[in-house]
Amino acid sequence: MNIVLVTEEEVRDGRVTLTDHRAAHIRKVLRASLGDRVRLGIINGRRGSGIITAIGKGASSPVCLLVDLGEEPGPPPEIDIILALPRPIMLRRILTQVAAMGIGTLFIIHANRVEKSFWDSGLFDDHGYLEFLRQGLEQAVDTRMPEVRIFRRFRPFAEDYLPQITASYQNRITAHPYGDARLVDCLLPGPGRVLLAVGPEGGWVDFEVGKFASLGFSTCTLGKRILKVDTAVVALHAGISAIREMQGRKR
Amino acid sequence: MNIVLVTEEEVRDGRVTLTDHRAAHIRKVLRASLGDRVRLGIINGRRGSGIITAIGKGASSPVCLLVDLGEEPGPPPEIDIILALPRPIMLRRILTQVAAMGIGTLFIIHANRVEKSFWDSGLFDDHGYLEFLRQGLEQAVDTRMPEVRIFRRFRPFAEDYLPQITASYQNRITAHPYGDARLVDCLLPGPGRVLLAVGPEGGWVDFEVGKFASLGFSTCTLGKRILKVDTAVVALHAGISAIREMQGRKR
Repeated sequence: MNIVLVTEEEVRDGRVTLTDHRAAHIRKVLRASLGDRVRLGIINGRRGSGIITAIGKGASSPVCLLVDLGEEPGPPPEIDIILALPRPIMLRRILTQVAAMGIGTLFIIHANRVEKSFWDSGLFDDHGYLEFLRQGLEQAVDTRMPEVRIFRRFRPFAEDYLPQITASYQNRITAHPYGDARLVDCLLPGPGRVLLAVGPEGGWVDFEVGKFASLGFSTCTLGKRILKVDTAVVALHAGISAIREMQGRKR
Repeated sequence: MNIVLVTEEEVRDGRVTLTDHRAAHIRKVLRASLGDRVRLGIINGRRGSGIITAIGKGASSPVCLLVDLGEEPGPPPEIDIILALPRPIMLRRILTQVAAMGIGTLFIIHANRVEKSFWDSGLFDDHGYLEFLRQGLEQAVDTRMPEVRIFRRFRPFAEDYLPQITASYQNRITAHPYGDARLVDCLLPGPGRVLLAVGPEGGWVDFEVGKFASLGFSTCTLGKRILKVDTAVVALHAGISAIREMQGRKR
């Protein structure tokens, strides 16, 4: 945890009182004491620090902080990801990693090769997935929570919803181990948002690749090596970011 | 497992007999039967397929394959990585991921912020780490096993060993959250090998950054976001690969 995140509702009169794992972190890991500043931010809001105004010694005693938030949140990330639902253990890791790397919206969808039982993981009850996104923000010192949209059926997503939003993305990419283009060929130079579709273990089926292609997605590969979905998501995000930065330098 | 890997010693007269988890994989996951071909490769050797010449139905009965290896191993990867020893659970994941993405040599070293207890994980007894590298190769359909070199003390590595090998790398990069340059500025255009040094959680200490800098390493960051080591390793590898591919296109 490189930043303590609080919700807007937790701040009252410029002060916040913590009693949960965040208090324990401040006490045990940061070993902070009265008057110290710790990095603090409001989820979807400003960042800065909290000055400790009270800190008990007991493991469950509260930590009170005076909030001092001088910094705007960073710019919204340009990358959004469509993710075919992976197995729960992998989804948790991907949620934390994409939140750490920075994405705008994560669309979690069904696909032909997604096992139906993956939907029963409990991560979608009571927004259980938010905890893992929050861990990614705490790691990356960010406050901007990615949006998550969930589609339990492929066709309503691909046929009804997706056509409405594609126009807002300059770059639309389907990642596919057997894609015919390389990432560097798929990204148009210039600014603009990127929508990246990452399939399940075993990949998208032809019908799905076709649906994306009909909406202007180019089918793109990272190379001949077949990667696990969690590795592929991080590698694609990093590859896209590096290419766009390089394109930016040339302008 | 996208390729069944065997050692050279296991192949006798062009045939191999499997009885372990690989036999179980062929039977249960691939559901292969007599006469089927399965992807097969020799560790550090050629790739191709194995034709099933005998397959019992019992869970522990052997699978016999006739080996047909038409394909050379891929070119050796251009990226080598120096990794400050992370906690064991993270090391396992990194081993699998770097083997899947492709690296030449992994130097696992001690550093100031490495907890000494991490060396007692058992991964270094009897080359226990090889199992995780092999899983990465099986995932990526590769046969080329990364070399691993282990240095339990930083100074002998940085002062005695490293100076002997740096000349063979055109690009030397220390990854550091507070580095002063971006990845795109650190990579020289043109071919040539890359040596990337990734620090522990908490980063390299100044003394270590200085040692690398004195050997021609540029100190380089992925941006303001602080990433976990496993995420950072994959992101750096993918970023370097994307930039080099783009540089290659321009030549």
